Amino acid sequence: MTGGREPGRAADRDAVEAANTAFYTAMEEGDFERLEQLWLDDGTTDISCVHPGWPVLTGRGEVLRSYALIMAHTDYIQFFLTDVRVSLSGDTALVTCTENILSGGPAEDGAELGPLVGQLVVATNAFRRTPEGWRIWSHHASPVIAEADDGTPPAAGDADPGPSA
Amino acid sequence: MTGGREPGRAADRDAVEAANTAFYTAMEEGDFERLEQLWLDDGTTDISCVHPGWPVLTGRGEVLRSYALIMAHTDYIQFFLTDVRVSLSGDTALVTCTENILSGGPAEDGAELGPLVGQLVVATNAFRRTPEGWRIWSHHASPVIAEADDGTPPAAGDADPGPSA
Repeated sequence: MTGGREPGRAADRDAVEAANTAFYTAMEEGDFERLEQLWLDDGTTDISCVHPGWPVLTGRGEVLRSYALIMAHTDYIQFFLTDVRVSLSGDTALVTCTENILSGGPAEDGAELGPLVGQLVVATNAFRRTPEGWRIWSHHASPVIAEADDGTPPAAGDADPGPSA
Repeated sequence: MTGGREPGRAADRDAVEAANTAFYTAMEEGDFERLEQLWLDDGTTDISCVHPGWPVLTGRGEVLRSYALIMAHTDYIQFFLTDVRVSLSGDTALVTCTENILSGGPAEDGAELGPLVGQLVVATNAFRRTPEGWRIWSHHASPVIAEADDGTPPAAGDADPGPSA
């Protein structure tokens, strides 16, 4: 962490972390309008998004449609964020964090809620400073797959390291 | 794509794409020193890296050690990059691309090369402009998991959408 190395950057760091939290809160609350506001919309800079296991989505149309789809298929989602780190440079900030996700789909057979599923996901979120505050430029989230039996992490590009210890 | 909207930005865009290509070429050639040079090293900005299925790695020590480990376990790796898109804002650039990977581990039983494995991975790479050129600030790569039977993509945070169609 570089916190404290540049005096005056602490406020930026707090603002970025608040924007990052707001992003996940909007997801938890299913607040599509808030989510829409949080994504960068300066008319020139392309946004992009990778949900866990998905290909890259580019541009507001594709990205926002994906959130509408996810919200429609998600009755309950909660993010317990850990390992939140902010890296600032100029008017850009990168936030990495672990998303400990608990989620449930629509209920079936008259139940109040579908089965809850826990997932371990890591994200890199890029934010851009705008006159309205920090806005999301890119979100890339991916599943954390367990280490192999011998303790070595999965190889480069290896999506299936085999059964974990 | 925003190409052409800002005259003078075309050269930046080309330079960023060249830096992105150099990053993958260094991996293909197992050129650790070149890779080390390509990662941002300004003394204040933290770098981060997520390999497919891995947790977040932060700082030059962790990030570069992971590449040394991957190179030691990889006898052959080739990246066929597709869907390369550059999004520029100020002195930061984000590159998204699909890494069509063909790789092989160390040979066993006297064979010349271990079995080759093909993998579909997407990446978001953040670059920062420096006096020495564009340098990698963050790399986040993740496996693309096939769509579910009903044609809907995996749910938010869903690392295992089940068997594909």
